[in-house]
Amino acid sequence: MRLGVAGLGTVAQGLFKLLRENANRIARQIGEPISVSRVASRTPKPEIDILGAEFSTSLESLISPDVDIVVELIGGVDAANKLIADALQSGKPVVTANKAVLARFGNSHIACANKHNVPLGFEASVAGGIPIVATIKDGLAGNHIDSIYGVLNGTCNFILTEMDRHGSAFDAALHQAQQLGYAESDPSFDIDGVDAAQKLAILGSIAFDQPIDMDDVYIEGITKVDAEDLKYARELGYRVKHLALARIFNSSVEMRVHPALVSEHNLLAFVDGVENAISIAGNGVGSLLLKGPGAGARPTASAVLSDIIEIARGKSSLPATTGIARIASSMEELECAYYLYIPVFDEPGVMATLADVFGKHRISMEAVIQKSDAIRYSEDTRWVPVVVLTDRTSESVMNATEQDLQNLDYVQGQIRRIRVVELN
Amino acid sequence: MRLGVAGLGTVAQGLFKLLRENANRIARQIGEPISVSRVASRTPKPEIDILGAEFSTSLESLISPDVDIVVELIGGVDAANKLIADALQSGKPVVTANKAVLARFGNSHIACANKHNVPLGFEASVAGGIPIVATIKDGLAGNHIDSIYGVLNGTCNFILTEMDRHGSAFDAALHQAQQLGYAESDPSFDIDGVDAAQKLAILGSIAFDQPIDMDDVYIEGITKVDAEDLKYARELGYRVKHLALARIFNSSVEMRVHPALVSEHNLLAFVDGVENAISIAGNGVGSLLLKGPGAGARPTASAVLSDIIEIARGKSSLPATTGIARIASSMEELECAYYLYIPVFDEPGVMATLADVFGKHRISMEAVIQKSDAIRYSEDTRWVPVVVLTDRTSESVMNATEQDLQNLDYVQGQIRRIRVVELN
Repeated sequence: MRLGVAGLGTVAQGLFKLLRENANRIARQIGEPISVSRVASRTPKPEIDILGAEFSTSLESLISPDVDIVVELIGGVDAANKLIADALQSGKPVVTANKAVLARFGNSHIACANKHNVPLGFEASVAGGIPIVATIKDGLAGNHIDSIYGVLNGTCNFILTEMDRHGSAFDAALHQAQQLGYAESDPSFDIDGVDAAQKLAILGSIAFDQPIDMDDVYIEGITKVDAEDLKYARELGYRVKHLALARIFNSSVEMRVHPALVSEHNLLAFVDGVENAISIAGNGVGSLLLKGPGAGARPTASAVLSDIIEIARGKSSLPATTGIARIASSMEELECAYYLYIPVFDEPGVMATLADVFGKHRISMEAVIQKSDAIRYSEDTRWVPVVVLTDRTSESVMNATEQDLQNLDYVQGQIRRIRVVELN
Repeated sequence: MRLGVAGLGTVAQGLFKLLRENANRIARQIGEPISVSRVASRTPKPEIDILGAEFSTSLESLISPDVDIVVELIGGVDAANKLIADALQSGKPVVTANKAVLARFGNSHIACANKHNVPLGFEASVAGGIPIVATIKDGLAGNHIDSIYGVLNGTCNFILTEMDRHGSAFDAALHQAQQLGYAESDPSFDIDGVDAAQKLAILGSIAFDQPIDMDDVYIEGITKVDAEDLKYARELGYRVKHLALARIFNSSVEMRVHPALVSEHNLLAFVDGVENAISIAGNGVGSLLLKGPGAGARPTASAVLSDIIEIARGKSSLPATTGIARIASSMEELECAYYLYIPVFDEPGVMATLADVFGKHRISMEAVIQKSDAIRYSEDTRWVPVVVLTDRTSESVMNATEQDLQNLDYVQGQIRRIRVVELN
């Protein structure tokens, strides 16, 4: 089994290392050794051991008779997209770790792979070393999947964990993530939630047998979360996680990525640092949780290798994305509980006025925290945060409620709102 | 794809339900529907909907031209063992949930399946709905597995959770487990650790490419654990779990099942009730955790169904158990930290004497708890528990140390000892 590998980055290097270190076990698993016959990359890096492969700066060189599987690890969109399309059209099996290409062009690649009856593996595109694609496609193949939710972006989780543990401000935690190599110099792709949304669109597709559709994913990043919110969430028995969630709700599909309060009764609340974790609920299995490294050279290479071995064994199955047409549910219809952080002037009558607004919108207040030692001073005014945990209500009602609260003369600054996710 | 199902118990009923409820999704996944052509069971149960299958009280009836896969769900050993052997020898693929048969006769069944090139699926034999067999065989196929450890017996975990949460005595917690249907009227198979050991022997085999060997598993149950131990463990930052652990250590394989202190820094410490969880460490993925229902009709049927679908897709791979000869490591060589509960008479000089014994054996005391409010009276003597958490030492040194401690005149009763498991 001969590989043609595109890329010389960290994941490709991890793959070369695993192929070398685990050569015997891999050969035993599939009955023959795996070799690398060709490697292609724009920039040669002679210092990297490419296991005796022939090197070229041309990606086209990989579509060659001495390559049995094309492994796309260059990242980016355009060149990778073209390589995947060319390989599939030439009847070459493809393994890719490229979530951006899949989120945008995955449907046509899957259609092409199905048309030519050629395997397309993308385990490594979601949640690094966690075999989540195989778990949904194969391990839970006999289930109707009801929901998938989890922590899919290690950068966000690292930042929130730092803020939670040390009370760091968002900017300081982001800076630390950048220094440790967990965040890019332009971190927006991660912290704005786009990375998690791409992964969720891929998972939603295989779980619900529907086309990949990024436009159906509601996206909110973590930039507005304050260290104070994490502290109050803890007091209420929750942790704040950047959550990705896809589920079938009233026959429509709901996919959303946003900060969320997760109950301490859910193990997901304790998944910290750069780790990823995903919970899947199905009508057979009930609820399953997978936790592991969401990124990194070796974990991602482990996922790439599982696809390669599956193809080598002649076992690969394409996802049954038969394009079931489902309506994406509107966020307005969403129902959940909410955390609200309301900065108010420290005056008599404030609480009664806040309670009136909630009552007007028929929202119950599940818990309220207002502390005498939390009083602040700014611009000659005394103010204090009032934190409210509401009962379940709809997003549209909450929008109207927040607007009314924000308009009160008593309210001193911007209200912050975080959804509460109550899943088993 | 036509099934011949042996058994009418809870798992078989769960399978019939999932086949009915999820028929469309299953057919979409494999490109054709799954039907049940034959069902066999010693005792007819006409009230059960067997999806139009032909019923017989003879298991042999399943080895028939109109059966494509034999699904063994009768439990027990002899009849199940014969059915599996007969089916494989007739070239019929087999799916089984029977860990007892696999632990005792799995090697010959795997050899027979390999010889006849017939798939043998046993995902459901370990950890119910958790797709742990597929995760090791396929998801981590490119890894050298370093260790597997986890909570594999829901009955033990339920009992320990009850004792921990409510301070219940072992007998009371066991009684409750029996009333809820989580423990058999003769609970010894679960609480003595045999069930977990069978599962561990199966997992060790596929993780380390070695034959299944129950004799290599050291087994200790949970009957000697006291609610007080759980309380002290908590104070020390641990939980007590009934742990199953297999790892390669100094080129030999170590497999053991026993109660263990698990650090609160490990999510496994928070896996409660009847749930199972397994952590796997591999040289590619790093560390992966899977948590889910370890038993129950529908979760187990979900695992059975995943094997059936894999076979129907023509994807099934047999484990590469090429019978690598490894020496089982002796428990004497084991090194770990220990928790000791030492009941001593409340007299001056006791602590110094205990410390002397530890010093003589060159064991450091990591933590000591002795509480003035823990003083007890029995048979006119005042005694008090001293709890010691030691540093790492070998099992043989600890055996000698415990013997010396037990022989002290100061020691009032039986010392209890629990191993501490420190894994990532």
